[in-house]
Amino acid sequence: MVKRNHNFERLEPNYLFKRMLDIAAKYKSVVDLSIGDTSLPIPQEVTEAMERKAQALGTLEGYTGYGMGQGNLELRELLAQKYGRSADEIFISDGAKSDVGRLQLLFGNQVSIAVQDPAYPVYVDTSLLMGQKEIVYLPCTRENNFFPELKKADLIYFCSPHNPTGYAATRDQLTELVEFAKKHNSIIIYDSAYAAFIQNPDCPGSIYEIPGADEVAIEVSSFSKTFGFTGVRLGWSIVPKQLKYADGRLVHPDYLRIATTFFNGASNIAQAGGVAAMQTDCSPLIAHYRENVRILREALKERFVVGGGDAPYLFAYFGGNSWQEFETLLERSGVLAIPGSGFGRSGEGFLRFSALAKRSTIEEAANRLHCYLSPTC
Amino acid sequence: MVKRNHNFERLEPNYLFKRMLDIAAKYKSVVDLSIGDTSLPIPQEVTEAMERKAQALGTLEGYTGYGMGQGNLELRELLAQKYGRSADEIFISDGAKSDVGRLQLLFGNQVSIAVQDPAYPVYVDTSLLMGQKEIVYLPCTRENNFFPELKKADLIYFCSPHNPTGYAATRDQLTELVEFAKKHNSIIIYDSAYAAFIQNPDCPGSIYEIPGADEVAIEVSSFSKTFGFTGVRLGWSIVPKQLKYADGRLVHPDYLRIATTFFNGASNIAQAGGVAAMQTDCSPLIAHYRENVRILREALKERFVVGGGDAPYLFAYFGGNSWQEFETLLERSGVLAIPGSGFGRSGEGFLRFSALAKRSTIEEAANRLHCYLSPTC
Repeated sequence: MVKRNHNFERLEPNYLFKRMLDIAAKYKSVVDLSIGDTSLPIPQEVTEAMERKAQALGTLEGYTGYGMGQGNLELRELLAQKYGRSADEIFISDGAKSDVGRLQLLFGNQVSIAVQDPAYPVYVDTSLLMGQKEIVYLPCTRENNFFPELKKADLIYFCSPHNPTGYAATRDQLTELVEFAKKHNSIIIYDSAYAAFIQNPDCPGSIYEIPGADEVAIEVSSFSKTFGFTGVRLGWSIVPKQLKYADGRLVHPDYLRIATTFFNGASNIAQAGGVAAMQTDCSPLIAHYRENVRILREALKERFVVGGGDAPYLFAYFGGNSWQEFETLLERSGVLAIPGSGFGRSGEGFLRFSALAKRSTIEEAANRLHCYLSPTC
Repeated sequence: MVKRNHNFERLEPNYLFKRMLDIAAKYKSVVDLSIGDTSLPIPQEVTEAMERKAQALGTLEGYTGYGMGQGNLELRELLAQKYGRSADEIFISDGAKSDVGRLQLLFGNQVSIAVQDPAYPVYVDTSLLMGQKEIVYLPCTRENNFFPELKKADLIYFCSPHNPTGYAATRDQLTELVEFAKKHNSIIIYDSAYAAFIQNPDCPGSIYEIPGADEVAIEVSSFSKTFGFTGVRLGWSIVPKQLKYADGRLVHPDYLRIATTFFNGASNIAQAGGVAAMQTDCSPLIAHYRENVRILREALKERFVVGGGDAPYLFAYFGGNSWQEFETLLERSGVLAIPGSGFGRSGEGFLRFSALAKRSTIEEAANRLHCYLSPTC
């Protein structure tokens, strides 16, 4: 008698993005600033490395099968260097999304999870489906300037720069987070997928810039937004050797077990691209997307927009009901955003705009937004 | 207070392959027939398709970001055609291993799981870590000719051709399996990763060749062994639209939710390779590995070997204790096999040899085995 996972009842019936796209499908000539999908080509140094790897796989001398359990050693060494960690602590993944769920297996299905509210829906959805007992929401609002009051939980998902608000936490705030986790024996799963977009020198790019963070934090990140790897699929998680459960046991050997039992490594071609990416400057791509942010911010100047441009997202306050504002904007201007409340209750009244689209799309959206928000248009 | 997943206690301390490799590391000039890692290069039609995709990702016109939730439509259509299913029922994955764990999320963590004994360790290890309440073992022995007596469970993992024994179930046996699942409201997760190796015309390559199987079975498969994609990472799962939970609800929409929440698609470069692979003949690779099987079988003729060459593995009876036989063989001949008991209690006395290694390795191993097994050597 095989039954359905009863935890499905705890989920919204549709994944946010699907619900949104189903509505968008009713409209014509839509300018899409919804899903944070990259649009710039991958730098040639990187695509050429992937071509070479693909070509080598077609030769007797160049062929390789299964890779190392934790991923390509050269790639792990390059990442280890970037973070000042050891290569043993790096686990190459097929992207942050897969690891967000996979990491929970370390702790079983009876843990409490704290998440920023609003947040990337995957933290909550994977937690609910895994059967986690409690989700603790940490409201990020205008009142607290988008850094939440921390609350006790076994695991704390924390994303900075934050999707969807774009807010990047400062060194002091991350120190507060680390101290809080230490005090309450919590483990932080720190999502730094947007770190390359940080401009504010007071905002660390990694949780490990905070002393003692390696005793309480796992960091999850990805090549998706920096090098346009959204489709190529490549990310990493860092599990420090000294990270412990409450009973003093080490976490690292268990994650090695999970990574080699529930996963068989990222594509070797993607990993060859990752090695090249680590030796390639992504700043031209970041600069291009930042200019997109500037253009959209200018068009949205009639509205309050969160943050200081440390992320490729603009979280703009339209007031009222997000889903209604979303549909009105779509109907009148054809601009597709994401309702802020889709990311959590505290996102109510906001719309998220992605600046990762093509420049021509950004410019068209800016024109339409300008007109939509202008009383005279 | 974040605790360790208590289910870790239920696992063997080391993943089988790791335990084996740790022992092997003590020996010199080892001839490795252990892990089923492919050695033949990928056909050029396929690597060229991957090169073209990598190159295109470096251009404005050719760049693509996130793919479709279930995977590349062209690839799904080609697979749908092969199986006589619809493209909607195909979910492209990064390989069968990841899906083995992911599929369990459909049913939560209170289900009973039946597995062949011996079996690929990942079925049991993922089940234990997910917290599944009961593992029911189905002994595959010389007495039952390696097709087990079926026993009641919510989920039945069934692999044919079977890893590690190499035994391929016949049409009648798979019909019995499907009827059993129908009678007991079980769902079969059918692993057909080695289907391309089947020679016996009485052994189906897919569970869906059995009438009514689409009411009770999910099939999981992969490009790993047929096209040498062990490192490229590409597989698929088939979740039929009519598959139901015991309460009559449909399974398919839930799996779509899981596939888009816990996963973000296989690499688009690997998927481009998959499209080419579906239009490329893999029979030269299969024929090469079959010849490897023949060479090893000849060398092992002093020992009972399971099956009729429908898989790239030889499961040979050495008697006694598998780990001891494994280490004696390694010590005296330098040939690295896998202890049969590592796959489950009923594998005791057997050693598994992989025929996926390079021809030169196979020939060297055959010479050494011949000598090892000869009373006069």
